[in-house]
Amino acid sequence: MLAAEVALVRAQARLGLAPDEAAGAIARAAGEPGRFDPRDLALRARAGGNPVIPLVEDLTAAVAATDPAAAAHVHRGATSQDVLDTATMLVSARAVDQLLADLDRVAHGLHHLARTHRDTTMAGRTLTQHAVPTTFGLKAAGWHWLVTDARHRLAGVRARLPAQLGGAAGTLAAFRAYAGTAADTADTADTADTTNAAAPADGPPDLALRLVAEFARETGLAEPVLPWHVLRVPVAELGGALAHAAGALGKLAADVLVLSRTEIGEVTEGNGGGSSAMPHKANPARATLIAGAARRVPALAGVLYAGLAAEDERPAGAWHAEWQTLRDALRTAGGMAATAAGLVTGLRVHPDRMHDNLGATHGQIMAERLVAALTPRAGRARAREVVSHAGRQAAREAADLLDVLADEPALDGLLTRGQLQALADPATYHGAAGALVDRALSRPCAAPAPAPSPAPAPERRLHTRGTP
Amino acid sequence: MLAAEVALVRAQARLGLAPDEAAGAIARAAGEPGRFDPRDLALRARAGGNPVIPLVEDLTAAVAATDPAAAAHVHRGATSQDVLDTATMLVSARAVDQLLADLDRVAHGLHHLARTHRDTTMAGRTLTQHAVPTTFGLKAAGWHWLVTDARHRLAGVRARLPAQLGGAAGTLAAFRAYAGTAADTADTADTADTTNAAAPADGPPDLALRLVAEFARETGLAEPVLPWHVLRVPVAELGGALAHAAGALGKLAADVLVLSRTEIGEVTEGNGGGSSAMPHKANPARATLIAGAARRVPALAGVLYAGLAAEDERPAGAWHAEWQTLRDALRTAGGMAATAAGLVTGLRVHPDRMHDNLGATHGQIMAERLVAALTPRAGRARAREVVSHAGRQAAREAADLLDVLADEPALDGLLTRGQLQALADPATYHGAAGALVDRALSRPCAAPAPAPSPAPAPERRLHTRGTP
Amino acid sequence: MLAAEVALVRAQARLGLAPDEAAGAIARAAGEPGRFDPRDLALRARAGGNPVIPLVEDLTAAVAATDPAAAAHVHRGATSQDVLDTATMLVSARAVDQLLADLDRVAHGLHHLARTHRDTTMAGRTLTQHAVPTTFGLKAAGWHWLVTDARHRLAGVRARLPAQLGGAAGTLAAFRAYAGTAADTADTADTADTTNAAAPADGPPDLALRLVAEFARETGLAEPVLPWHVLRVPVAELGGALAHAAGALGKLAADVLVLSRTEIGEVTEGNGGGSSAMPHKANPARATLIAGAARRVPALAGVLYAGLAAEDERPAGAWHAEWQTLRDALRTAGGMAATAAGLVTGLRVHPDRMHDNLGATHGQIMAERLVAALTPRAGRARAREVVSHAGRQAAREAADLLDVLADEPALDGLLTRGQLQALADPATYHGAAGALVDRALSRPCAAPAPAPSPAPAPERRLHTRGTP
Amino acid sequence: MLAAEVALVRAQARLGLAPDEAAGAIARAAGEPGRFDPRDLALRARAGGNPVIPLVEDLTAAVAATDPAAAAHVHRGATSQDVLDTATMLVSARAVDQLLADLDRVAHGLHHLARTHRDTTMAGRTLTQHAVPTTFGLKAAGWHWLVTDARHRLAGVRARLPAQLGGAAGTLAAFRAYAGTAADTADTADTADTTNAAAPADGPPDLALRLVAEFARETGLAEPVLPWHVLRVPVAELGGALAHAAGALGKLAADVLVLSRTEIGEVTEGNGGGSSAMPHKANPARATLIAGAARRVPALAGVLYAGLAAEDERPAGAWHAEWQTLRDALRTAGGMAATAAGLVTGLRVHPDRMHDNLGATHGQIMAERLVAALTPRAGRARAREVVSHAGRQAAREAADLLDVLADEPALDGLLTRGQLQALADPATYHGAAGALVDRALSRPCAAPAPAPSPAPAPERRLHTRGTP
Repeated sequence: MLAAEVALVRAQARLGLAPDEAAGAIARAAGEPGRFDPRDLALRARAGGNPVIPLVEDLTAAVAATDPAAAAHVHRGATSQDVLDTATMLVSARAVDQLLADLDRVAHGLHHLARTHRDTTMAGRTLTQHAVPTTFGLKAAGWHWLVTDARHRLAGVRARLPAQLGGAAGTLAAFRAYAGTAADTADTADTADTTNAAAPADGPPDLALRLVAEFARETGLAEPVLPWHVLRVPVAELGGALAHAAGALGKLAADVLVLSRTEIGEVTEGNGGGSSAMPHKANPARATLIAGAARRVPALAGVLYAGLAAEDERPAGAWHAEWQTLRDALRTAGGMAATAAGLVTGLRVHPDRMHDNLGATHGQIMAERLVAALTPRAGRARAREVVSHAGRQAAREAADLLDVLADEPALDGLLTRGQLQALADPATYHGAAGALVDRALSRPCAAPAPAPSPAPAPERRLHTRGTP
Repeated sequence: MLAAEVALVRAQARLGLAPDEAAGAIARAAGEPGRFDPRDLALRARAGGNPVIPLVEDLTAAVAATDPAAAAHVHRGATSQDVLDTATMLVSARAVDQLLADLDRVAHGLHHLARTHRDTTMAGRTLTQHAVPTTFGLKAAGWHWLVTDARHRLAGVRARLPAQLGGAAGTLAAFRAYAGTAADTADTADTADTTNAAAPADGPPDLALRLVAEFARETGLAEPVLPWHVLRVPVAELGGALAHAAGALGKLAADVLVLSRTEIGEVTEGNGGGSSAMPHKANPARATLIAGAARRVPALAGVLYAGLAAEDERPAGAWHAEWQTLRDALRTAGGMAATAAGLVTGLRVHPDRMHDNLGATHGQIMAERLVAALTPRAGRARAREVVSHAGRQAAREAADLLDVLADEPALDGLLTRGQLQALADPATYHGAAGALVDRALSRPCAAPAPAPSPAPAPERRLHTRGTP
Repeated sequence: MLAAEVALVRAQARLGLAPDEAAGAIARAAGEPGRFDPRDLALRARAGGNPVIPLVEDLTAAVAATDPAAAAHVHRGATSQDVLDTATMLVSARAVDQLLADLDRVAHGLHHLARTHRDTTMAGRTLTQHAVPTTFGLKAAGWHWLVTDARHRLAGVRARLPAQLGGAAGTLAAFRAYAGTAADTADTADTADTTNAAAPADGPPDLALRLVAEFARETGLAEPVLPWHVLRVPVAELGGALAHAAGALGKLAADVLVLSRTEIGEVTEGNGGGSSAMPHKANPARATLIAGAARRVPALAGVLYAGLAAEDERPAGAWHAEWQTLRDALRTAGGMAATAAGLVTGLRVHPDRMHDNLGATHGQIMAERLVAALTPRAGRARAREVVSHAGRQAAREAADLLDVLADEPALDGLLTRGQLQALADPATYHGAAGALVDRALSRPCAAPAPAPSPAPAPERRLHTRGTP
Repeated sequence: MLAAEVALVRAQARLGLAPDEAAGAIARAAGEPGRFDPRDLALRARAGGNPVIPLVEDLTAAVAATDPAAAAHVHRGATSQDVLDTATMLVSARAVDQLLADLDRVAHGLHHLARTHRDTTMAGRTLTQHAVPTTFGLKAAGWHWLVTDARHRLAGVRARLPAQLGGAAGTLAAFRAYAGTAADTADTADTADTTNAAAPADGPPDLALRLVAEFARETGLAEPVLPWHVLRVPVAELGGALAHAAGALGKLAADVLVLSRTEIGEVTEGNGGGSSAMPHKANPARATLIAGAARRVPALAGVLYAGLAAEDERPAGAWHAEWQTLRDALRTAGGMAATAAGLVTGLRVHPDRMHDNLGATHGQIMAERLVAALTPRAGRARAREVVSHAGRQAAREAADLLDVLADEPALDGLLTRGQLQALADPATYHGAAGALVDRALSRPCAAPAPAPSPAPAPERRLHTRGTP
């Protein structure tokens, strides 16, 4: 919020609407370490319904203590929402930048996993049951694709995060009014006679628009087309992009949890969580935390989307519902990405267990291919019937499907045992998995491109330009 | 679903993987009016957990009745999810196309309203209270910006809606297998001796990828990078875009509801809803229906986002939760857009009531400007104090702020009564509203551009290529 | 809705506010089969924003066709919301009655499972890992407890489902007015001179309250303390109870899905879903449908809870958001219960697989008990260290924990091999599972008791009293 | 969490399973101020996925520093979830107790408002339009009914908040094991020869159940029927009750916001929020904060309901999703109640504005009664037609409905002007509002009664029994 107040007076100074000295004094006061007490501000915020009111009081007092004239330029022409929304976007930008960096680490690790295990055969599972073989590479490539897609979406939203400046009802009227009185005062400084004077004229409309542009530049945020006090697209689309990211990481976690099960054991978290009761236990703690968080973000995004339907020039409630919700969504998605980076880096893959598990159905996981091979020889209906029948017999007798089929008279003259054996090897039935991995790793995402000119990170700008 | 089945065999025929005759026979059977009974399919769908299984049975039987050889090509190599997801995207495409057309009608009407009332003064309201003046044009321009932004997002998602083809576990393995056996059968048609033969070889991986491309082309949907059985970005981003659209229309409705209030009366719906109890009553029925629907879509989008976190190669539940949810979201958002088009077209605006209501605070709505005008003359603190004090007195005495201020000794020599009167005219205190309207109508949206090559509407393709 | 209209005029007739003949004529018209066209009513409903308006038009016309005098008594004094809310509660009552019956079937099946498998040992799994043994009986008793708790909550809500009667703004004013004019007309029937007459007096307030009571009795619903047009407790608490039921069934499904996994195989659905691609596959189709539905109901309940915050005497949106949401929640939870009844009845339990899986950790699942046994002999720290160390070694060497421990010099003199073997038997380490099962089956639920006098099922009343 | 650990060892000591000295030592260590560093615990919590693991480490170390033997009794037999769930319930109990007290303050204030304004006439508003008159008393009685209903629900849930004790997988097995080894050690203390000894026997099952009862008594929480590690009814029903409370307060806020509108002005918050831009503005800041919060709690409740569907004996994610969600729901609903207490206490009601606003429709708000009065004289159709026609004419001419009707020839001989005037007085058309107020204030709530024996507040117990 202090950064927003400083950016505002600096933008005004740049356009001649405030003295450079005032901007300097306000920036100095805003930069005093320990000057502002968050807890006290929070308590005082309840009375007026937002924290900007007490902050402006304290900032004005701090400025006035050293430069009384400058104090009049604190928050001039702005409304609380200008400052709070801009601050929210600055915080969001910082959080999203960290999130993007963590997603990059996740994506990098997944790229490596997908390449390394491009051709590692494992059971494909649908509706909890073994279906046909797949590869761990294809699974990892899917994770990678989701994560890069989510990253791309977030980067686009990040580049569009706008500054907020509209004044009391979004018309920028006060900025024009102060711009006019500034000029007016300058003009009439040497005359005390205002009897017949016209009313002070407002500054020109385009000055207000230029102020918005300058303000956005100062904050490092994007310039909005309109004040967005009640046009909450930036918050809603950020919520949506965070839900995408949470979902992408949630998919990764859901798979790791399944593959970590004691009976499956195909992957292990590098540093599994311990248990206070069972010394031997190694829990997939990171995947668990991510899965838990993935259940929360969509509901938060729902609240943010609902905030679009906001009445008037500032809604009584819809805006306020965003505050804690967006903070929670950023924090939760951010934590997920950091945790996922650790998860992916440390993930241990066990191709031997994958191989062993492929035998769990005693060959039935290859039924689809056997039907396909028999179809041109025996017709589809007959092919299905033969394999189904053998499958039921094999299940009944806990026998291998191949053994049952090899004894099946109906197959005589159609497929030799050697052919059957070759067909029944899961490692040769990956379909186009390898090609899909290659393609997915090179064309990673579906999300639309971000806006052409991403804004610089606000933090850095504010700090490099900060108070001396 | 039938369109998906037809597209699949046509794509296979185009690549030489199925005879043209089979494709023709399947298309004919699929096109028979009344052949398939939705209620019966729904009841039989429960056993296997999806409706594709009974549909394929019925389609196979229908084809077999006229062309037994063709029946073997129904659904060949596909999994239920290929057909259901593709069907869902075809239905979504059709629904979104209608939605886009309705949003265009809404946007067109709002553009007209914003232009017409570019300079119509009204009270700006924040937290339910009059703040400073604004214009109805700026309000309408904000609605327009939201609607065009939402439209743009939806159009981008629409262009990316993908076909689904992955086979049992997303590897496309069965398609390769059938492609191989097709070749294999052709090669070995003249020899009965398979004793020493190698196992039948699968078709090449790139054939499977080409099949996906052909299939997408047949459906008119986008070609996916990967099978997305468990990479649910298309559904999640559609849910998000529908929530954006619902929110944009919800904002419009929220404002219409406020402005329609009996005590405010600044707008009226053209054909307000009647009341069964009070003959005189004209309810804002359209805005009400839209506002009601706007409360539902965000929760539905939340369920769809949550579906991203889906385990395995096909999840047991996350996928199924999408079905009714997406259908409801499409239907609800679609209904909102159609209703909003009627609302905007018929909306009657009452500038006289806007003018009257500007007087509701007895001039206090202009307090901000008076403070601004006094600040260079009296200093900010004094300016605020004088206007605040006069405001309290005016409120106490139900007097006009201007009258109280005119009698205020502190103002003597600072502003004349004439200047005060000029400053206190709401019609001259629009700030940059007009310029903002102009800019917003010419730079309408924040959403990223859609993908460069939007797919043709699937409906049209399927029908023009349909069964003879 | 027709039932509500009929109940209203019958209640009025019972209090002498309408002729019995009018009530009879209205009931007859309402009961004419095929007289009212839902699709036409739906289309006409859009104009006024609710379906009661066209229904009352059609009902009035139908009555007028045979008894013009009776037509004046259709919907007399009521508002659309009286009829729609009452109809919603009648539909809810019918749906909940079916749901309760299905939950009873589920509970009955679970009771049997818990009794039968009271002492069937299986692996207890936490965070996807084997922890210590438990019993299938305890798991089933937990399901039973959840389901009976949810059933109890729903039964309480069911008994409280209220009729709605408030008139235009919830004051019942029109009912008093018509009651007065009825009396007034009777009194003044023989005089045409009203010149000096006082204004017609309203009926007494308690007559209006008695009408509400009669109306509730006619519908078979509970009598409300206040008109609840904007006091949406009945809908919110129904939503909450449906979410409880969905969650209880969702827990059952979540466990069945885990235990059905190919690698685990401890339970099988009786008639697993088939697969269109893999003839051998038996999917847990019922558990999948339940799990999918369980992801949807909580979001629907959230929308219904949000409807409590409704402005005015009838809100513009919050009420309308309930309609489709409640319908969907009833339908979804109802479908879950019916599906769960089938699931539980057909569930096959495989104690042999449970036994085999207990060996998956090579004895480490008993580590907790070994630590407990060693603690008094070696101290807690040492006990943990010894077992942990042996556990790590066993894992490294794929050896059995017992074998490693038996060779452990540190155990010498503390526990014999025989003691170790006895301690390491999972079947003797159920803790208090059996006692918990017994207790849970006899004290099944936490939910508060329903109201003392549950109303009779409305369906039956309306039908037995229905039109001849 | 420390309170839960202390309660556990005390309960064990009470049953002879731990020395009283150990319980004392652990209680002393747990009570040392500043001994445990929340931030450090939070950081270390990430590795294992929960904060109990590092806390037990630190507590064990703290105990061992003074009483090494006692250290072995820290957390004995428990699992992390026992401690975290119990701690969550202790925190919830404390938060809900505060919430109940604040809801009592709200209810008290509303009771007073409803009594004071039992007969204060105001416009009843439906779908934003004036409908018929109502009273402010009836509105306040509705608020009161909602708040007392929500309070009653919460009190019931509060009384049922259970302690959690199940051990590693909910069987209480370790407690039996330690109970047995305790006995075993005592028995065999004088013999070093274990060669032929039987394995140490577990304690009896009912000892484990008695331990649960003792533990619950120590915590002041209810005794659970079953360990509820994966039977999340307590959390789900708490979420639901918080959503009810939030909705009840949200209704109050929604109405205050409407009635506070500048054009309506029927109520004012005592200490309205100031504005940083407009010195005159008095925002309904409390109602705004409540309305904002009311948009958030239903989504949080939805996440908690979704947590019921939790797999295994401890789920990997569903449990973890509760933590921040429940905390946020408690905090948000708690803040709402405190804010609402201030709102209700300070609310200023303006009967004069209510009276003035009743004239906003120029008499049309009384149309329903005029139709009712005319119906027995002219028939319903004619009565409606006459009043509708006059209503349209009055609206067109901005005339008073009464004046138009008085000139209406069709009314000649039916109603005199005097009668019309009497009928058209809103203050005589309250229907049964007064009787409804009386009834509602004396029969305040629909919620089921709480369990008969509410547990004492845990805080007090723990503190009075605290460390010496």
